[in-house]
Amino acid sequence: MHFSIDRKYFYDKLSIVSRAISVFSPLPALSGICIDLKDDSMTLTGSDSNISIRTVIVPGELNNLDIEEEGSIIIDSKYLLEIVRKLDCKNIEIEVIDYSLVRISSDNGQFNLNGIRSNEYPDIDFTQPKHHFVLKATDLKSIVSQTAFACSDKDQRPVLMGVNFNSQGNMLYCSGTDSYRLARKTIELDSSQDFNITIPSKSLTEVVRSVSDDDTIDIFADSKKAQFVFDKTIIQTRLIDGTFPDVQRIIPTSCVSKMLVDSYEIAGTIDRTNFIRNDKVHLIKLECTPQETHVKTYSSEIGNSDEVLTKCEYEGEEISLTCNGTYMLDAIKALGCEKVLIEFSGFMKPIKVSNPEDASVLMILVPIRSYD
Amino acid sequence: MHFSIDRKYFYDKLSIVSRAISVFSPLPALSGICIDLKDDSMTLTGSDSNISIRTVIVPGELNNLDIEEEGSIIIDSKYLLEIVRKLDCKNIEIEVIDYSLVRISSDNGQFNLNGIRSNEYPDIDFTQPKHHFVLKATDLKSIVSQTAFACSDKDQRPVLMGVNFNSQGNMLYCSGTDSYRLARKTIELDSSQDFNITIPSKSLTEVVRSVSDDDTIDIFADSKKAQFVFDKTIIQTRLIDGTFPDVQRIIPTSCVSKMLVDSYEIAGTIDRTNFIRNDKVHLIKLECTPQETHVKTYSSEIGNSDEVLTKCEYEGEEISLTCNGTYMLDAIKALGCEKVLIEFSGFMKPIKVSNPEDASVLMILVPIRSYD
Repeated sequence: MHFSIDRKYFYDKLSIVSRAISVFSPLPALSGICIDLKDDSMTLTGSDSNISIRTVIVPGELNNLDIEEEGSIIIDSKYLLEIVRKLDCKNIEIEVIDYSLVRISSDNGQFNLNGIRSNEYPDIDFTQPKHHFVLKATDLKSIVSQTAFACSDKDQRPVLMGVNFNSQGNMLYCSGTDSYRLARKTIELDSSQDFNITIPSKSLTEVVRSVSDDDTIDIFADSKKAQFVFDKTIIQTRLIDGTFPDVQRIIPTSCVSKMLVDSYEIAGTIDRTNFIRNDKVHLIKLECTPQETHVKTYSSEIGNSDEVLTKCEYEGEEISLTCNGTYMLDAIKALGCEKVLIEFSGFMKPIKVSNPEDASVLMILVPIRSYD
Repeated sequence: MHFSIDRKYFYDKLSIVSRAISVFSPLPALSGICIDLKDDSMTLTGSDSNISIRTVIVPGELNNLDIEEEGSIIIDSKYLLEIVRKLDCKNIEIEVIDYSLVRISSDNGQFNLNGIRSNEYPDIDFTQPKHHFVLKATDLKSIVSQTAFACSDKDQRPVLMGVNFNSQGNMLYCSGTDSYRLARKTIELDSSQDFNITIPSKSLTEVVRSVSDDDTIDIFADSKKAQFVFDKTIIQTRLIDGTFPDVQRIIPTSCVSKMLVDSYEIAGTIDRTNFIRNDKVHLIKLECTPQETHVKTYSSEIGNSDEVLTKCEYEGEEISLTCNGTYMLDAIKALGCEKVLIEFSGFMKPIKVSNPEDASVLMILVPIRSYD
């Protein structure tokens, strides 16, 4: 194997592939990037066996790729990235010089790294699943930023560690929940679909890190895996087994009172009481009347706080309930709008937080019983 | 106790004082900032008993300080800083409302924090030591940035964890060493002095973080403590006991060969081989002849590298020696100049690294025996 390539271009592609690689891989080959030169193109593969990324580079003006000899090798991803990033030259040359010893040459010097023969790389099945739909990168990014934060990070119920993509007809419902809160984004698809899959939120985060805003992403899925395809790159992830809870059920259909509040003000108010915690949980108590809305916190150890929201319109019956302040703040931030609408469906009943100008996204919080 | 003050001004002063406070303080009072209102001024004190910071605020246009009632209290530094930083108003009001309960009020709300009565604060002796000299903040900053990095971070020989300030006549020699390397900066003083003290490098770092470039710093010292006084603030630190090694002895007085090299090139070359380590130590081998200078690394596990320095003038006898690459890189970075002069005094003898245009600062590295 022997080729030369534009350093910066190569680094960008290596970075994408390396996102799949786990530092603590039980299989030495999986801590490396597999470089495969064949049929006048280069294929880079990285994987941690849950998520796998493959990208193809064909010779072109931008990348300056020049293949002198076909072949393949696995190079430790950390070392390879570090060298390619730090070298101070336009092109670099990579060559397998002896069995698995790889020579990386720049203008003024060379590195010899111990590689691994490519036959030790596990066989990763990149065949295309049957369901197919298309999303704009910006849509996928908003799905992930507005739902993935609500997923569980505990593996007691693995299915809650992913975002559920549920398609019925032309509508795609994306939901993240840890059973205490729910974040749901609805997107209209170009074609009618019928699937219900749960994609690990960690994989989705890697996908959105790798795409550019003007990409269009082809998504393929079946019951076992999903593939995100864009710009000669495939990001493939295993799906999470198990039945995702029926979240539609917990979305309140009516409200007893609602408030329209300035996002910046309420976020600031909740954020600055963040340190007043009980057993590490940040509880806030909302005391709402048509006249005044108070945000209160209390901790016997640390102290208490009481602030009035000034930019707030409230209508409906008086209500007083406690919820997780961190969750409320996450929801408000994920909505990312100037004013948020908070709808109460009654004492100890779910709270709905939404953007009054965008019905495609909604957040549900479950109140917490407090004994004060 | 009851006062109001400009929020931003107060935050800046609290930040300075809080630098002395350790998160894990065995004495609860020391995890707080002591606020003392007396004689129409406010004194803030923070301490971890090794380093203590005191600053005085007198009412003025900038700070808007208005003292309604004298008194004193200790407030947890983490919580106080968080509230004052995050509040969204110009002025804040602080009041002790009941025994040790402190009320912090802003335009729209209030926090009640559990404080600690000020009589629980340890008595810190801020009397002025006898030796006195003056340094410009920029000079103190360069002393610290050019010497403190070379101090030891292991407490086997505590005296090596500080920068030695040794004054003879008008000259002040500042040295940091961990016994494998030495960094020395020489400053000319306005007055003749005679002292030899070792200041913990950690304390020096806190001092330079707190000063502005246009400050002038009065330094007072005796055999027990040093005080840095500027802008109504005193930073006081304990000194390190023990005899600082006679570092003058190890500075080579002659050389067998020397090289003048582009800092950016040699720093880049060393930096990109950083991952090729043996037992976690980054060893580089310099192979110098008048014709060519190679920087080589070798690790049986990872691989090896070989680069030629192109912007390098070398004169003197051929030499080949191994040194710690991290230390060499630290030295070159601390010099912060375009070209560095590296002088060799012989095989296995100290290497001197300096700025050819500034004789006030020099770095010494001890070579390492390698068996290749």
